[in-house]
Amino acid sequence: MAKPKKQPRPKAVTPKGFRDYFGAEVTQRTEMLRAIAGVYHRYGFDALESSGVETVEALGKFLPDVDRPNEGVFAWQEDEGDWLALRYDLTAPLARVYAQHRNDLPTPYRRYAMGPVWRNEKPGPGRYRQFYQCDADTVGSASMAADAEICAMLSDTLEAVGIPRGDYVIRVNNRKVLNGVLETMGLADTAQRDAVLRTIDKFDKVGETGVRELLGKGRLDASGAYIDGVGLAAEQAEPVVAFLTSGGSSTAETLDNLRRAVGSSETGARGVDELQQIADLLAAQGYGRDRIVIDPSVVRGLGYYTGPVYEAELTFEITDEKGRPRQFGSVAGGGRYDDLVKRFTGQEVPATGISIGVDRLLAALREKGRLRTAEQGPVVVTVMDRDRMADYQSMVAELRQAGIRAEVYLGNPKNFGNQLKYADRRASPVAIIEGADEKASGVVQIKDLILGAEIAENATLEEWKERPSQFEVKRGDMVVRVREILSGHQQS
Amino acid sequence: MAKPKKQPRPKAVTPKGFRDYFGAEVTQRTEMLRAIAGVYHRYGFDALESSGVETVEALGKFLPDVDRPNEGVFAWQEDEGDWLALRYDLTAPLARVYAQHRNDLPTPYRRYAMGPVWRNEKPGPGRYRQFYQCDADTVGSASMAADAEICAMLSDTLEAVGIPRGDYVIRVNNRKVLNGVLETMGLADTAQRDAVLRTIDKFDKVGETGVRELLGKGRLDASGAYIDGVGLAAEQAEPVVAFLTSGGSSTAETLDNLRRAVGSSETGARGVDELQQIADLLAAQGYGRDRIVIDPSVVRGLGYYTGPVYEAELTFEITDEKGRPRQFGSVAGGGRYDDLVKRFTGQEVPATGISIGVDRLLAALREKGRLRTAEQGPVVVTVMDRDRMADYQSMVAELRQAGIRAEVYLGNPKNFGNQLKYADRRASPVAIIEGADEKASGVVQIKDLILGAEIAENATLEEWKERPSQFEVKRGDMVVRVREILSGHQQS
Repeated sequence: MAKPKKQPRPKAVTPKGFRDYFGAEVTQRTEMLRAIAGVYHRYGFDALESSGVETVEALGKFLPDVDRPNEGVFAWQEDEGDWLALRYDLTAPLARVYAQHRNDLPTPYRRYAMGPVWRNEKPGPGRYRQFYQCDADTVGSASMAADAEICAMLSDTLEAVGIPRGDYVIRVNNRKVLNGVLETMGLADTAQRDAVLRTIDKFDKVGETGVRELLGKGRLDASGAYIDGVGLAAEQAEPVVAFLTSGGSSTAETLDNLRRAVGSSETGARGVDELQQIADLLAAQGYGRDRIVIDPSVVRGLGYYTGPVYEAELTFEITDEKGRPRQFGSVAGGGRYDDLVKRFTGQEVPATGISIGVDRLLAALREKGRLRTAEQGPVVVTVMDRDRMADYQSMVAELRQAGIRAEVYLGNPKNFGNQLKYADRRASPVAIIEGADEKASGVVQIKDLILGAEIAENATLEEWKERPSQFEVKRGDMVVRVREILSGHQQS
Repeated sequence: MAKPKKQPRPKAVTPKGFRDYFGAEVTQRTEMLRAIAGVYHRYGFDALESSGVETVEALGKFLPDVDRPNEGVFAWQEDEGDWLALRYDLTAPLARVYAQHRNDLPTPYRRYAMGPVWRNEKPGPGRYRQFYQCDADTVGSASMAADAEICAMLSDTLEAVGIPRGDYVIRVNNRKVLNGVLETMGLADTAQRDAVLRTIDKFDKVGETGVRELLGKGRLDASGAYIDGVGLAAEQAEPVVAFLTSGGSSTAETLDNLRRAVGSSETGARGVDELQQIADLLAAQGYGRDRIVIDPSVVRGLGYYTGPVYEAELTFEITDEKGRPRQFGSVAGGGRYDDLVKRFTGQEVPATGISIGVDRLLAALREKGRLRTAEQGPVVVTVMDRDRMADYQSMVAELRQAGIRAEVYLGNPKNFGNQLKYADRRASPVAIIEGADEKASGVVQIKDLILGAEIAENATLEEWKERPSQFEVKRGDMVVRVREILSGHQQS
C-alpha cells in the first residue's frame, strides 16, 4: 500500500516586503503617534479612523482590461463582484469619507488620521509594502490661514516628537506660481508643458545647470546615457530657472523674485499673493525663517497639488550605510488640493493637508541617538523551588502593584543558569532570588544585573568586593530596595 | 457625432461590513489600548506588531479547488504566484512570528499585540468585517503559573479600563476535564464523540434540560423544528451533565464535583489538577472568586483549546435595542493551545493566552455611561474682520501654548451666525469675539457656550441678567479667563 503523501510544512516567513516590529520599535511608534495626535488635537483637529479596506471605485483606481486592478494596490474581487483594495494612503479615504458624511461633518472639517497604508510595489532596502502615515487635513476652507495653520502645526509637531528647532526646516512653494511661470513661457502645446513639468521634477537631482540642459538640448547623465532635452531656447527656459532659483535672503526678496518670474500672469500673481499671505500669517505668530521658509526650489508634489505645497526636511547630517555623511532629508509633505471631493460629488471642495512619514521620523531619531534602541526589561523573580510558585507570584504581584515591571520565570526552573541567561536576554535590571534558606530566614537576594555587568567588564578585584552586585534584604524591604536600584540606574 | 459617454461618478460608500470611526470613538479606543498595554507591559509582556498581510500558507488556510481561498479570509494572489491574505486574528501571526524568530526570542516569550483583524464573513448589526483585537500570550511555558498569570492580568486589565470589581467575572474551565468525562462515557466512535462536543457547545443557549434532551432522543427547538439527539441513554449522558453543572459554592466543592465527574480517567484527573493549581496560585495572590472562578459551565473555546480555557464576562445588565434588560456578556476569551507552532516546526510548543474584544468593551462602557459620547470641542476664535486673520491666529496660538484646544474659524466669515452654528456643531465650550471696537479698546468678548446653552434652556429672565454668558475681558486676560471657564465646566 502506498504511503499517504505527507503534507509539507508551511514556511514561517513574512510575505515579501513586509516585516515584524518588536518591543521598543512598537512602543516608540505608539508614543510618537500619541505625541503627534496631542498637537493635532490641540489645533482642533478631530480623529478619524476609516478601515484599511476600500472599494477600488472609491480609491480611484479603475479596472484595466487585465484580471486585477493591482497596479500599486493590493486588490481582490468580492464574491458578489465588488473589487476591494487596501488603502494606499489616507487622503483617498478622506475624500470618500467627506463625500459620504459631509452633511454630518462641520465645515470646515479638520481631521487627523494615523495608521498603516499598503503599496503593492517592489520592495527595496528600507522600503516596505506596509508603513505608517500620519495625516492632518482641513477640508472646506479656501483660506490661506488654513495652509499657514498646517505649516505652524507641522513645526510644533516636529518639536513635540523631539526634533529641536534648527534641526528641521519647513519649505513652502506654490503650484500657481509655477503655472504662472509656464504661462509666461508661451509653450507650444500640452506635451511641451508636460515635458517642462517633468524636468522641474528633476531639479532636486540635477540642479540648476542640469535643468537648463534638460530644458534645452539635453544632457549626458551620470550613467553616460544622453537624455534628450525639451528643446527650448535659452531665453525661453529662463523663467523656469528664475522660478526655481528665486529663493532670497529674506521672504520679501524671495517674493519679489517670484513676482518678476511670473511676469504678467494673473495666476502667477495670485500664487505669489498666497505665499505672501502665508508668510505674513506665520510671521504674526512668530514662526520665522528658522522654522518655515518660502522656498521655490521645493518641487516634490508640484505636479499633484493645486496651490501651496509644503515639505519638512531634517537638516542635520547622518552617516549612511557606507559611512558617508548625508542630509537626512524629507520627513513630511503636503499641500492644497482643491479637487479632493469632486470625483464623488461634482462639487469643488477646497482642502489642504500634510502627511508625516512616522517611520522615517523614528529612523531619524534613532540615528541621532535620541531614542533608546532597547527598552529596559522587567525585574525577573527566579524560581528556586518549583513548589513555591505561589510565593514567587506574590512577589511579582507586589512589585507590579508598586508600578514596577516584573515577571516570574516561567520556563523549566531546573537549571538556574538558564534563568539568569533568560534575565540577560530580557535586559532585566534586577533578579530576585529566594531559595529555601532565604525563605526560612525571611530574606531575599537581590541581584543588580546592570551593576553586575559593569563590574564584570571594568572592575578591579577591590572594587568587586566593595560594590557587591548581589545582596540580601528582608523580604518586607524587597519592593523598596528594588525601586532604589531602578531609580539609581535611571539617573545614571 | 455621438457624445462621448460620461464616466459615472464613483459612489462614496464604505465597503459592505466596514465602517468609519469619528472623534471620541477613535480617541477612546486609543486610550483603552494604551491602558491595556500599560498593564501587559507591567506584567513583562513585550509588544509585537506584525503586518496585516500574511501568506495564506502561514495563516493555515489551504487552497481549495476553487479560484480563491476566501473562506473566511480576504485573500488574493500575487503576480508571482503567492497567495496573500489579511490576518483574521492575532494568534496565527504569533505562531508564524515565533517559528520564524524563535532563536532571537526569549523562552518563554511573553508578547502582546493589538490591532485590526479582518473576517470575510457576512456582516450583521454590530458585526463588522474589520475589528480590533488585543492579545497577550505566553509561548514556551507549560506551567499553570502562566495560565494563572494570564487570568490575573486579565482581571487587572478590566479594572484598569474602568470595569469595577464586581461588574465582571473571569471563568476558568479545562478541556482536559472534558476529555476525561468523554473517556468515562465509553462512546462508540469519533462521530458520536463529535456529536457530544457539538451538543456541549449549545449549553449556553439550551441549558441543562436542553443538553439532556439533545444527548438523548432530541429536542423541539424554539422555532418548532425537531432537532435529532445523539441517542445516548440517560445514564450514559450523565457524566456530561455532571461536568457542566459541577460548579459549587466554593472552589473546593467545584473541584470535588469535577473529580467525581471524570471518574477514573487519568486525563480528567490531570485537568482537575491543573484547575486546582490555577486556583491555588490565584488565591495566593489574593484573586478571589469575586474576580476569577473555576466554572465548568464555560464551554466557548473548549473545542479549540487543549488545556485551561478562560472567559471574561461583564455581569451587569444593559438594556438592549428593544428595551429589554440583558446581561452584557463576554468581552474576552482565551486558553492554552499547545500545538501553536507545531505546524511550522514539527515541535510542540506550549502556549497560553487571551484576546480582548476592545470594541465590545468600549460598547459596554458607553452603555453604562462611563465614557463620554462626545469630546468637548475646541475654543473657537471667530473672525469678525477677515483682514485681521493674523490677530485671530495669534489668539489661538496663545491659547494652544497654554495647553488649551483652540481653533480659528476657517470658513467664510461673512455670516456671523454660521460661525456660532459651527461652534455649536464642534461642541465648543467657548467662543472668542474681537471686532473692530474691541480691538480699538484692547478687549475681547468671551462667550461661554455651555452656560449659554444652560441658560437658554432653563433660566428665568432674572437669572439671565445675573449670569451673563457673554462678557468682555482685557485682551491680555483672555487666556486666564478662558482657562477659568474651562476648569469650571470640568468640575461641574
